Amino acid sequence: MNYLEVLMKRYACRNFKPIKLPDEKVNELIEVIRLTPSALNLQPWRIKIVKDEMVKEELFKYSMGQEHVRSCSHLLVFCANTDIDEVIKKADEAMKRAGLSEERRQHMLSIAYAIKDKLDRHWAREQVFIALGNAVIGAKALGFDSCPMTGFDPGGYSEVLGLPRHIEPVALCAIGYGEEAPTPKVRLSKEEILL
Amino acid sequence: MNYLEVLMKRYACRNFKPIKLPDEKVNELIEVIRLTPSALNLQPWRIKIVKDEMVKEELFKYSMGQEHVRSCSHLLVFCANTDIDEVIKKADEAMKRAGLSEERRQHMLSIAYAIKDKLDRHWAREQVFIALGNAVIGAKALGFDSCPMTGFDPGGYSEVLGLPRHIEPVALCAIGYGEEAPTPKVRLSKEEILL
Repeated sequence: MNYLEVLMKRYACRNFKPIKLPDEKVNELIEVIRLTPSALNLQPWRIKIVKDEMVKEELFKYSMGQEHVRSCSHLLVFCANTDIDEVIKKADEAMKRAGLSEERRQHMLSIAYAIKDKLDRHWAREQVFIALGNAVIGAKALGFDSCPMTGFDPGGYSEVLGLPRHIEPVALCAIGYGEEAPTPKVRLSKEEILL
Repeated sequence: MNYLEVLMKRYACRNFKPIKLPDEKVNELIEVIRLTPSALNLQPWRIKIVKDEMVKEELFKYSMGQEHVRSCSHLLVFCANTDIDEVIKKADEAMKRAGLSEERRQHMLSIAYAIKDKLDRHWAREQVFIALGNAVIGAKALGFDSCPMTGFDPGGYSEVLGLPRHIEPVALCAIGYGEEAPTPKVRLSKEEILL
């Protein structure tokens, strides 16, 4: 499938087949997510992958009745890492590991520190949505289905998953093999989105 | 290229060749953007495509010295539509046009109105980042390069482009054919992003 075909075929899947995705498929999706671009390449996200049925049952209580939270194969909980010092430190380590030039590394760090007051939780959450979008499109490209969700209780999720305070649940992505026939694609027209 | 290859080859392009992208390529990218998923499928974005050199020169003044704002073929200005009543109305019209069932349409609308107080400008901005991510990955899939940017003065952009108050510039995406050799891919490890 080319990219436009993937976009056309992707849909928010609400009925999953009772089949588990093989680990290799999940790993491919993690690799997709890992390669997501972000502002200053700071990657301020953490993802919890929930496969355990008991944990999914617990999370379901905080999911506004969305059945696919427990009927999916795996539930990905996309979180923002709001500890910006840690975010910058980790990104710096990644630059060193990848062998980026010292000049380029220092340039990136100097920008990050110069705008640090703007790198708040809203900023981190925005970046997480790039990763979420990449995951749902990537899942279809990899041959399976997904459902992104923002309707859930982040506090309940934090409690069930034992997340530290600086890790903020932002969005969910249920993945698996879909059962339902997708509904017609509903989009604004080109004229409506262009200014 | 498969999806992972696209992600591996995509990079933030800072040097564009002095060649214009053909209109058909730009139109393909608009179609990619148009198909972006969003929460409740509300698509709270508007995009201004700037091709005119004089306008790019004006915008460059508010772009923190980023040369690729004027050296690119086209500059896409991704904006959030913060007029939520208009957003819901447009999404409703799109559902009617696409022939969605009355039950499903009413279901979507009832959720949108129930959570309307949460659909603020932060929410709209978050959705725009899904579209931005889709655009930069889509551009590479379509055979050209891009550079997403959030470092610019939104007020200056609004003034130059004559945007109404409810249309908030959120991010830029310069597109064209890239000249530079991409730097090594720098990413956190799988272990660092998983919780």
